[in-house]
Amino acid sequence: MTLYAQVEAALAERIGAHWQIGDRLPTEDELVRQFGVSRITVRRAVQNLAARGLVDVRQGVGTFVAAPRITQQLMELTGFVEDVHALGLEASAEVVTVETVTASRDVADALEVPFGSAVTFIERIRRADGRALSFDQTYLVHDVGQRIAEEDLENTQIFTLLEHTYGVPLAGATYRMSACLADSDVAAALDTEIGEAVFRIERTTCTTNDRPVDYEILHYRGDAVTFETRLHRRRDAP
Amino acid sequence: MTLYAQVEAALAERIGAHWQIGDRLPTEDELVRQFGVSRITVRRAVQNLAARGLVDVRQGVGTFVAAPRITQQLMELTGFVEDVHALGLEASAEVVTVETVTASRDVADALEVPFGSAVTFIERIRRADGRALSFDQTYLVHDVGQRIAEEDLENTQIFTLLEHTYGVPLAGATYRMSACLADSDVAAALDTEIGEAVFRIERTTCTTNDRPVDYEILHYRGDAVTFETRLHRRRDAP
Repeated sequence: MTLYAQVEAALAERIGAHWQIGDRLPTEDELVRQFGVSRITVRRAVQNLAARGLVDVRQGVGTFVAAPRITQQLMELTGFVEDVHALGLEASAEVVTVETVTASRDVADALEVPFGSAVTFIERIRRADGRALSFDQTYLVHDVGQRIAEEDLENTQIFTLLEHTYGVPLAGATYRMSACLADSDVAAALDTEIGEAVFRIERTTCTTNDRPVDYEILHYRGDAVTFETRLHRRRDAP
Repeated sequence: MTLYAQVEAALAERIGAHWQIGDRLPTEDELVRQFGVSRITVRRAVQNLAARGLVDVRQGVGTFVAAPRITQQLMELTGFVEDVHALGLEASAEVVTVETVTASRDVADALEVPFGSAVTFIERIRRADGRALSFDQTYLVHDVGQRIAEEDLENTQIFTLLEHTYGVPLAGATYRMSACLADSDVAAALDTEIGEAVFRIERTTCTTNDRPVDYEILHYRGDAVTFETRLHRRRDAP
């Protein structure tokens, strides 16, 4: 076993046995002294722990024991509650905003409605076992959206309302994923800091008639979620 | 047209016509004066420009004209060169490291080889039209890896070598995507700053015999790439 692997294993054991989520690890200098190894060995061990999701390295601040990441499958269109239940966790939603707004250029393009026309806007903070995972901004076409706006959105899923209450069968969605830094609104919603990494997912969900009904901007905490998918190689690949 | 949409449209026009990639936008205060609107109106306009990928907001630093994002399809297993060519751009690779290393726990698990055994390690910076998009750390099983290590990796794709030169047919890959902050190594490789948002993708590629041959850690600039996929709704969705 190489030196850095020994240091990595020793730290991983302490994380499992003694340290709590959010605890700060000793500094690099302290670890160099404790283990009697070089700085480069300590650094590689900590990098590996970060790659394994066991610690968060915050540049210029320190290294902290990370909360376990959730792995979410990106194989079929599912709602947040379905995803969280599949992991055996409890899902909850805090409704922040429900209002009628005018469609911006992006919203109008996504929902295929006129620029400036009325759409329903819903903001929710989604939690798994009480931990904020996702900040969802949902735009719905207005005819069904204004009825969904009247529903109990803390306890009812929008996909369920569309599919079962309002008879709008869903076929699938386009996902556009980017990685960005939390601004003040997103940081506040996700109980994190400005400048932390977040996934930004634009998701447009269409009906079986190929009509867009639901355009969402989902912000997921980068340190909390891993998205997993499997892709096949094309037969005629070059 | 609402006030913020007018401000947004005016700024988008200036970005297209007068400003260059990397130019700093006027401050919020300046925009408030120029347009004679409230701070909240300016902020919403700038947020929308950021959401459209036209500007990058760097907290505490300023707002800058963004380079156009590349949209990369995440629908089938493709290599970097295939992805970049599909967009009509020129792909290039800078080989940073080619060496035999011992498998860490993660690498051993991914490639299904003994912990500490020899694997081939290749680091490359991948560029599209000269712009660094991805920093790839590739671990190959050693039998084929040590032969690939001898090849011209600036000009030849690893998938092509596997499939066509060494007769290793590829079936598909598992992708695990997270959003994180660039550390010093990643920032240097991607010509960006420490603490900028990056996608971190762990990709394990398997042969048609279901053997893992290629485990990669890909870091993509968060401000340069959007990943796009389409998912279908399950028929028996709850």
